[in-house]
Amino acid sequence: MAAMATGSGTSSGTSSGTSAGRETVGELGELGLIAAITGRLASGADVELGPGDDAAIVRTTDGLVVATTDVLVEGVHFRRDWSEALDVGHKAAAQNLADVAAMGARPVALLVGLGAPASLPVAWALALADGLSAEAALVGAAVVGGDVVAAEQVIVSVTALGSLDGRAPVKRSGAKVGDVVALCGRLGWSAGGLAVLSRGFRSPRVLAAAHRRPEPPYAAGPQAALAGATSMVDVSDGLLSDLSHVATASGVAIELEVAALEIGAPLHDAAAALGKDPLEWVLTGGEDHALVATFPSATALPAGWVRIGHVVLGAGVTVSGLPAGAYQGPGGWRHYSA
Amino acid sequence: MAAMATGSGTSSGTSSGTSAGRETVGELGELGLIAAITGRLASGADVELGPGDDAAIVRTTDGLVVATTDVLVEGVHFRRDWSEALDVGHKAAAQNLADVAAMGARPVALLVGLGAPASLPVAWALALADGLSAEAALVGAAVVGGDVVAAEQVIVSVTALGSLDGRAPVKRSGAKVGDVVALCGRLGWSAGGLAVLSRGFRSPRVLAAAHRRPEPPYAAGPQAALAGATSMVDVSDGLLSDLSHVATASGVAIELEVAALEIGAPLHDAAAALGKDPLEWVLTGGEDHALVATFPSATALPAGWVRIGHVVLGAGVTVSGLPAGAYQGPGGWRHYSA
Repeated sequence: MAAMATGSGTSSGTSSGTSAGRETVGELGELGLIAAITGRLASGADVELGPGDDAAIVRTTDGLVVATTDVLVEGVHFRRDWSEALDVGHKAAAQNLADVAAMGARPVALLVGLGAPASLPVAWALALADGLSAEAALVGAAVVGGDVVAAEQVIVSVTALGSLDGRAPVKRSGAKVGDVVALCGRLGWSAGGLAVLSRGFRSPRVLAAAHRRPEPPYAAGPQAALAGATSMVDVSDGLLSDLSHVATASGVAIELEVAALEIGAPLHDAAAALGKDPLEWVLTGGEDHALVATFPSATALPAGWVRIGHVVLGAGVTVSGLPAGAYQGPGGWRHYSA
Repeated sequence: MAAMATGSGTSSGTSSGTSAGRETVGELGELGLIAAITGRLASGADVELGPGDDAAIVRTTDGLVVATTDVLVEGVHFRRDWSEALDVGHKAAAQNLADVAAMGARPVALLVGLGAPASLPVAWALALADGLSAEAALVGAAVVGGDVVAAEQVIVSVTALGSLDGRAPVKRSGAKVGDVVALCGRLGWSAGGLAVLSRGFRSPRVLAAAHRRPEPPYAAGPQAALAGATSMVDVSDGLLSDLSHVATASGVAIELEVAALEIGAPLHDAAAALGKDPLEWVLTGGEDHALVATFPSATALPAGWVRIGHVVLGAGVTVSGLPAGAYQGPGGWRHYSA
């Protein structure tokens, strides 16, 4: 744990009239904040040693450790006036846990680095930790370690660890010509929510909520692996963008069928109000962390998975069945066509 | 990998007259920088899958994963005018690898999050990656994943993973009354170097170098575990501070013998020039990442380990044998006395 070079030391409660809710990170100090956060964290079934030592220790069942890291920066990835700290915590955890799931693995632990201005309310940091811990708990994982440092803006760095439990990892590079492409989860909801919030609206509430806190289908990752998925990614940057990485890594082309892509009712409502095409959100919107995988054509898709296309010879990603007047570019997904 | 909301996209080389050495992170873009960094990283023996997928995969031999994370912030933990990027990379890796070693484990992998202003030279980011990779390679570990995001100041978040290879972890809480306290590595060199640099001096060069790039005795961690160490920490905040955590966690007191603490010749030189007591640096200086462990008194200490004290009934850390006129406080280590 690096020292926090702000505030008046590591003791709290020295000034009169302060409560935990009104203290700042600078007043509480690094060690006080770490102690307060640690006291709120739930443990997990695979945690051998939690926070408080030089390092944490977690278990995987087969010796293989799946590991991924993502950094969220205030003003770039979230805004404190649009998202509560609890939501930022959920979101920061979700995007890492989804990366673990997209390998066919089961998340077991998170480690968190928090860069915080001295003026950041302690309550904000604690709610962030609550969100991280609660999202991890959804999949039986736990926050096992972290660091708190002084920084000019709020930065949340999350590392997720996962266990394959004997399954082979599902990489981006395994898609084969003839495979079907299948989707599990929502597309375009976060982008629609961002569009709504950007225009100063708060509704449709479900879209704003989807932007603040994604709901990745974590269990679908290991299920897809067990069902024989040949490749898998989570949709973090947008369906066309992320599938283009699969196509490139696998040396194939992917054809999507527009008719198979569900456009949620709230997306239609928001798009109508904003003069947008909801299909653009579905094809190019990121941060919902749906899972997309390829399966041999004879595979019976696991529950929750929907066929949205197939793998062919060639390169890039194409979309068939676009209705007249639908979103056609100019940039966006066309960039990814072969 | 989260999107980098700076610069002109993900392609490089569009403007005339630029070379990799003169481009900024904003000009190169997130994906370009990640590709450039990834191409420079060495692999490791325990890496099953390196960068480029949703997550990396590394192996541990017994299913237990040691994991720790630290964040370094420009202006708080390093200064770009005092430390080269290569040194910052070495240091960021070293403090995490030392945490792994202090559990008795062998580091196998690093994951790195980089927050970078758009104006940061690409060459700086690449040299940082080189330092991280080279320090990891010293112990056979590798950088297996990461993220690059836009941020107002340079922030380097590092997570280290390690394997216990069947050894029991050495925690802070296992020190027993009657144990000897032993040290492996340098103390006070980084603090002495910081004092020198803070006064505008560049010598003694070995101290400035020690501040820029610590040299933790990584192999001593697993060696101590095999020899039966009952507790262990790396000295990241200062000998007295870090041992006080051991004393508290173990429910014991620790007595240090000043005569046993080696004060390196460069420390004497720098202290004389600056009017300081070198013992203060040895007792309270952090960031050298020496290892301190407790062993049953009958244990033959492994090579490189030196006895510096013993464990007694009580609480806190005390220092015996202080010479007349030696550093006595007022704050510092006295704070940690029982």
